[in-house]
Amino acid sequence: MASHKPILVVAGVGTGAGTGGSTARLFAKQGYNVALIARNAKELETTAAAIRSTGGSAAAFPIAQYEYKDIHDAFDAIKKHWPGEELRVAVFNASAGVRKPFLEVTEQDWKDSVQLNIVAAAAFAREAILAFQQLEPNEIGARGNLIITSATAAWRGNLTTSAFAAGKHGLKGLAQSLNKEFGKQNIHVSHAIIDGGILTDRSKGRGDEWVNNPDVRLDPDSIAKTYLYLAQQDRSAWTFELDLRPAHEKW
Amino acid sequence: MASHKPILVVAGVGTGAGTGGSTARLFAKQGYNVALIARNAKELETTAAAIRSTGGSAAAFPIAQYEYKDIHDAFDAIKKHWPGEELRVAVFNASAGVRKPFLEVTEQDWKDSVQLNIVAAAAFAREAILAFQQLEPNEIGARGNLIITSATAAWRGNLTTSAFAAGKHGLKGLAQSLNKEFGKQNIHVSHAIIDGGILTDRSKGRGDEWVNNPDVRLDPDSIAKTYLYLAQQDRSAWTFELDLRPAHEKW
Amino acid sequence: MASHKPILVVAGVGTGAGTGGSTARLFAKQGYNVALIARNAKELETTAAAIRSTGGSAAAFPIAQYEYKDIHDAFDAIKKHWPGEELRVAVFNASAGVRKPFLEVTEQDWKDSVQLNIVAAAAFAREAILAFQQLEPNEIGARGNLIITSATAAWRGNLTTSAFAAGKHGLKGLAQSLNKEFGKQNIHVSHAIIDGGILTDRSKGRGDEWVNNPDVRLDPDSIAKTYLYLAQQDRSAWTFELDLRPAHEKW
Amino acid sequence: MASHKPILVVAGVGTGAGTGGSTARLFAKQGYNVALIARNAKELETTAAAIRSTGGSAAAFPIAQYEYKDIHDAFDAIKKHWPGEELRVAVFNASAGVRKPFLEVTEQDWKDSVQLNIVAAAAFAREAILAFQQLEPNEIGARGNLIITSATAAWRGNLTTSAFAAGKHGLKGLAQSLNKEFGKQNIHVSHAIIDGGILTDRSKGRGDEWVNNPDVRLDPDSIAKTYLYLAQQDRSAWTFELDLRPAHEKW
Repeated sequence: MASHKPILVVAGVGTGAGTGGSTARLFAKQGYNVALIARNAKELETTAAAIRSTGGSAAAFPIAQYEYKDIHDAFDAIKKHWPGEELRVAVFNASAGVRKPFLEVTEQDWKDSVQLNIVAAAAFAREAILAFQQLEPNEIGARGNLIITSATAAWRGNLTTSAFAAGKHGLKGLAQSLNKEFGKQNIHVSHAIIDGGILTDRSKGRGDEWVNNPDVRLDPDSIAKTYLYLAQQDRSAWTFELDLRPAHEKW
Repeated sequence: MASHKPILVVAGVGTGAGTGGSTARLFAKQGYNVALIARNAKELETTAAAIRSTGGSAAAFPIAQYEYKDIHDAFDAIKKHWPGEELRVAVFNASAGVRKPFLEVTEQDWKDSVQLNIVAAAAFAREAILAFQQLEPNEIGARGNLIITSATAAWRGNLTTSAFAAGKHGLKGLAQSLNKEFGKQNIHVSHAIIDGGILTDRSKGRGDEWVNNPDVRLDPDSIAKTYLYLAQQDRSAWTFELDLRPAHEKW
Repeated sequence: MASHKPILVVAGVGTGAGTGGSTARLFAKQGYNVALIARNAKELETTAAAIRSTGGSAAAFPIAQYEYKDIHDAFDAIKKHWPGEELRVAVFNASAGVRKPFLEVTEQDWKDSVQLNIVAAAAFAREAILAFQQLEPNEIGARGNLIITSATAAWRGNLTTSAFAAGKHGLKGLAQSLNKEFGKQNIHVSHAIIDGGILTDRSKGRGDEWVNNPDVRLDPDSIAKTYLYLAQQDRSAWTFELDLRPAHEKW
Repeated sequence: MASHKPILVVAGVGTGAGTGGSTARLFAKQGYNVALIARNAKELETTAAAIRSTGGSAAAFPIAQYEYKDIHDAFDAIKKHWPGEELRVAVFNASAGVRKPFLEVTEQDWKDSVQLNIVAAAAFAREAILAFQQLEPNEIGARGNLIITSATAAWRGNLTTSAFAAGKHGLKGLAQSLNKEFGKQNIHVSHAIIDGGILTDRSKGRGDEWVNNPDVRLDPDSIAKTYLYLAQQDRSAWTFELDLRPAHEKW
C-alpha cells in the first residue's frame, strides 16, 4: 500500500459493474485506497482484485448483511487495513429497489426496503461522520465527503413504487438532515438522484440499441465522474443535491 | 350500536387528547362507528368510553405493537365488532417522533422510526385498502378514504430530525404512491402535513400564553374538521396533500 | 342589497362556467355579496344577473385589462357598491395558459403570461390585503382569505408549458411569500393546484364520455366547495396549499 | 482571436466581480471566446479588457435593456464578431433581486422582476437554443449547454421576497420545461440554485470576518468551476438542477 493515500469507502458494489464499481475504479485511479463493501464476498473480491491488477489500491470488506454491527465492523477493519490513512470519502450506494403493486409488497419487502435504503444508510453515515470528525479540514475545507446515491423515487412515488419510494424518500430526508447538521463541521453531505436506467455488464451483454445509445442510458463511469467532482468542490460552494439523467430521458 | 353506520378506524390515538382522539370524536358525532387503535389499552378504553357516554358508537382495539400481524388482527376484530357495517374511513395517525442530534440516534431509534412511521403505515394502509375494495363507491364516488397524518419533517430535514425526517419523508413517498395506484379504484388517499405544535391535555394544563392563543398552536379539533372535509370531497376534485398550521406560525 | 353580508371578490370569471363562476354562485348562496371581475363585460353581467335571479347579491366589475390601475379601480368600485360591507374573501382565478413549443412562444405570449399569471395576481393580492387590513379578525380569527387558483404547472414544467409553467411557478412563489408575510396579520392566503381538465359549458355541450364521467374531470362546483372550506378553516389550522384532481387522474 | 475556439455567452456580468465575471474568466482560460452581455457598457468593457490582458479572448456586447430585441441583436453581433466559431455554452446570470415587504413592492418592481428574471431569460434561452440547433453534438454529446443561475428564492418564498421569489420560481419553471423539451435535441439545460451571499469586489473591500471566512460565503470562482463542470458532463449523465452553498450556511 502506498502511504498517504486517502481512503474511499463505497458500500453497495454489487457485481462491480454499476455505480459502486465505477466509483471505486475512478477514485483508485485518482490515488485513493478503495475499500469495497457489499454482501457477495466473491464478486467483491473480484472487483477489488481487478483494481489492484491495474495498479490501484483496493480491498474487499464483505458484510453478511446491512446491519449496524456489520457496517461498524467493516469500518473498523478498513481503518486497520490502512493504518494512518485518512478516510475522506464515503459513498453509500446500496439499495433495495422493490417494485411491485402495493398489495403484493410483503411485510419482508417493507422491512428490507427501510432497513437497506434508510437504516443501513444511517449506520453507514454514522461511521463515515465519526471518521471524518477525527480529521482536520483538507485543502478545500472538507473533513470528508459523504455521497448518497438515490433515485427518482426520492422525489416521486408511483404506481408500483410504494416500498421503493418510501425508502428513497426516507433516504432523502436523512441526507438533508445530515447536510444541515454537519455542514458546520465541514463535512460535505451530497444526495445524487439517478433518474434513468444504468448500463451494467448484464445489459452490455445484450448489445442492443439501448446499450449502444449513450443518449438513453446512464453510464456508471459518468456517474462516478460527478461523484469525483462533488468530492473536489471547495467549501465555499458545496452541492447538496443534484440529479443525473441521460440526455434523452423523458421526465 | 345503530345499524348502517359507516366505520372509521383511527390508529394512533394516544391519550385521546390529540389529533386521533379529536378525529374519533368528530366522526362519532357525524354518525360513524369509531374504532380506536393504539398501544395503551387503558387510555384507549377511556377515550372510547367517553365517546359512548355522549351517545357515540366507539370501541377500543388495543394492539401490543405496530406490527403487521397486530394491525391485521385489529382490523379483523373491528369487522367482527360491527358486522355488516362498511369501513369507509381510515386515519393513520401513529408516529415516532425521534428528535436527537444524529450521533445520539440509536439503532433502536432508527428501527422504531421506520417501523412506526413507514412499515406500520403500510400495514394499516393495506388493511384499509383491502376493506375499501370490498365496497361499492358511495354517493360521492369513494370506496373509502385513507388519511395519513404527517409533519413538516415530510418536506424538510433539519438539525435534530434525521430519524424523524427519514420516517416522514418515507411516509410521504408511500402516501403518494398509494394515491396514484388506488385513485383509479376510487380510493381516496390523502396526506396531511401538520406544521406546528398541537394543543394537548398536558399542554392545556399549563394554561400559558401559548395554550390560550389560537394563533400560535394547532387545535386537534380543527385538524379533525379538515379530515372530515377530506372525507366529504366528491370524486371530481380530491385533495392528495395539504398542510395545516396556525395563523402566526413561522415557516 | 342586503346589509351586513361579507363581500367576495373573484377575478377571472370568464364565461361564468368555470371555477370563478362556480365560486361566485356558491358564495352567493352562502350569503356573500359577490363582486365579479373579468374582461368580457357582457358575459360578466350575464353571470351576475343569473346569480341575482336566484336571490343572490352579485355585481359585475369588468376591467379593460389585468393591469394595476384597472384592478385598483375595480376594488374601489366594489367598496362603493356595497358601502359598509366587509371584503372578507378574494379569489384570484385569472390565468394565461399559453401552451406551445418553446420556440413558438412569442415575446407577447411571455409578456402576457407573466402579466396575467404573476403581476395581476400581485396587484389583486395588494388590493385584497389592504382591504383585509382594515378589518378585525372574524369569529374564526381571519381578517380575510385570499385564495389563488393555480395548476400543475406550478409544480412541474413540461414539454409545451415553458411560458405557462413560468407563470404558475411564479404565482406559487408569490403565494407562498404572501402566506408567510401576512399570516401574522391573520390574513389567510391559500394556493390551490388544480390538476386536471375542468368541466365547462363548452365541454358539457359535447356530452361525451369524459363529460359524463365524474371520475375523470373536475367539476368547478366541487372546486368551489373546497374554496368555501378554506374560507371556513379557523386560525389554528390553516391550509396554505392543496391539490385537487379527479379520482382517476394519472399524475 | 484564435480560430476554432468555442464561444461562451454570459449575460449578467455586472461589475465583473460576481458569478458572471468569474464564469467568463474561467471559460476564457479554458480556451473559449467569451462574449459578455450586461447593461453597463463601461464596466463590461473593463471586464472584457482584463480578460484579454491575460491572453484570453473576450468582447463586450452591452445592451440598453434586457428586452427581446436587445438580446437578439447581441447574439447577432456575437456571431459576427467570431465568424465560424461555435456558440457552445450560454450562461444566464442576470437577476432582479427586489427584496421589500410586499406592500412596498411597486408596479414597476413587479414588471422589472418578471421581465428580467423570466422574460429576458426566455429571450436569452431562445437565442442560445437557436444557435445550438445549428451545431452537431460535440464529443460529449452536447449541441450546447444553457446554464441558468438562480437562487434559494426559486424553492421558497419568504417574508420580503414576494417579487424575487415569483421571479425565481418562474425562472425555475422555465428552466425545467426547457430541459425536458430540448434534452432530446442534445441540448443540456441546467439550473443552479445559489444559496448564500456571494463575495464581490465591494464586499472584499470590507475585508471583514465574513469576507475572510470561506465557510460562510460563496466565492464566485467556485461557482464558475461548477458551471464548467456542468459543461463537461457527457450526455449519459446530465444534471438539470443543483444547489451551491457555503459549508456553514444555515438552510
